Amino acid sequence: MPIVNITMLEGRTEDQKRAATQAITEALVQHCGAKPENVVITIVDVPTTNVYMNGMLVSDKRRNPS
Amino acid sequence: MPIVNITMLEGRTEDQKRAATQAITEALVQHCGAKPENVVITIVDVPTTNVYMNGMLVSDKRRNPS
Amino acid sequence: MPIVNITMLEGRTEDQKRAATQAITEALVQHCGAKPENVVITIVDVPTTNVYMNGMLVSDKRRNPS
Amino acid sequence: MPIVNITMLEGRTEDQKRAATQAITEALVQHCGAKPENVVITIVDVPTTNVYMNGMLVSDKRRNPS
Amino acid sequence: MPIVNITMLEGRTEDQKRAATQAITEALVQHCGAKPENVVITIVDVPTTNVYMNGMLVSDKRRNPS
Amino acid sequence: MPIVNITMLEGRTEDQKRAATQAITEALVQHCGAKPENVVITIVDVPTTNVYMNGMLVSDKRRNPS
Repeated sequence: MPIVNITMLEGRTEDQKRAATQAITEALVQHCGAKPENVVITIVDVPTTNVYMNGMLVSDKRRNPS
Repeated sequence: MPIVNITMLEGRTEDQKRAATQAITEALVQHCGAKPENVVITIVDVPTTNVYMNGMLVSDKRRNPS
Repeated sequence: MPIVNITMLEGRTEDQKRAATQAITEALVQHCGAKPENVVITIVDVPTTNVYMNGMLVSDKRRNPS
Repeated sequence: MPIVNITMLEGRTEDQKRAATQAITEALVQHCGAKPENVVITIVDVPTTNVYMNGMLVSDKRRNPS
Repeated sequence: MPIVNITMLEGRTEDQKRAATQAITEALVQHCGAKPENVVITIVDVPTTNVYMNGMLVSDKRRNPS
Repeated sequence: MPIVNITMLEGRTEDQKRAATQAITEALVQHCGAKPENVVITIVDVPTTNVYMNGMLVSDKRRNPS
């Protein structure tokens, strides 16, 4: 505990994921009193066609960044 | 808000995902008073071997549709 | 299939949830070819202290709506 | 009901997934009184770079199994 | 790993949850080669108004069980 | 994006949740290049009876901390 599930756009590197998960663990340890060995984080990578935010698919936003 | 996560069988097109996410947003705006710009939808595509429903894997159901 | 999980701010009525889930099912049937009897939707209600969006907790946003 | 979502390391076979989902359904029927036809299970496969547990990414753990 | 998230109707006892989580762990160990100490299971209890299945809210189904 | 869902033991204060979500956002901005305004975090609080980890329910672990 806590169990963290992150859905993010595909394309991040292993180094980015390592750094992000370590920093997130530190945040939960520091601010929520979590034990580092009990923090579990999973990342699910999704394409831009699979995220709808701010009124449109991210894939559409990327094509029409206005 | 609301945050919607949809797990669905892989194979839907971007057009299908665009239309579905827009219609789902309208449903949440109309029936739950959500603000359209605050609705976030993620879609996770999974193969038929990764869904168990009505007593069997969907992949088995597809092989034996009786 | 599809399986839809909605995390939303607590406070919506049963009528709102009935109308929203029916409309979401219709959206998935119409746009993704889902079978109505196979659509499963779960709703998890959370308090405003449990949602962080647009740079702040929704509970803080409600206190300082500027 | 219940709705079960399993995030697991990629690489399991269809046979493994069939056996696991059937056994999980039996567990929920036997211990929680679930109806077998209402149990829905989805599996999301992730690479070792996408799981952080026991203080590190599983991909790092695999490289340094000490 | 695996990480299991179960959304179920509220009302199950601690004994039921203990028995179900142990049996689910055994299923994942036996059929997927998981290590028992790495299996993590979370349960989210929801009311009948928060589950839509087989074309209706479970709360409605309970009122009209025909 | 990214969308973060945290399942944690109930009992954390609003201040803890504010600090943790801000730190998690900074981690995702710094290490994954996320835009702060696009990070969405939801927290689902669960009782100790609803988490199974390291071979037992957390509620049992709390009763027998050996």
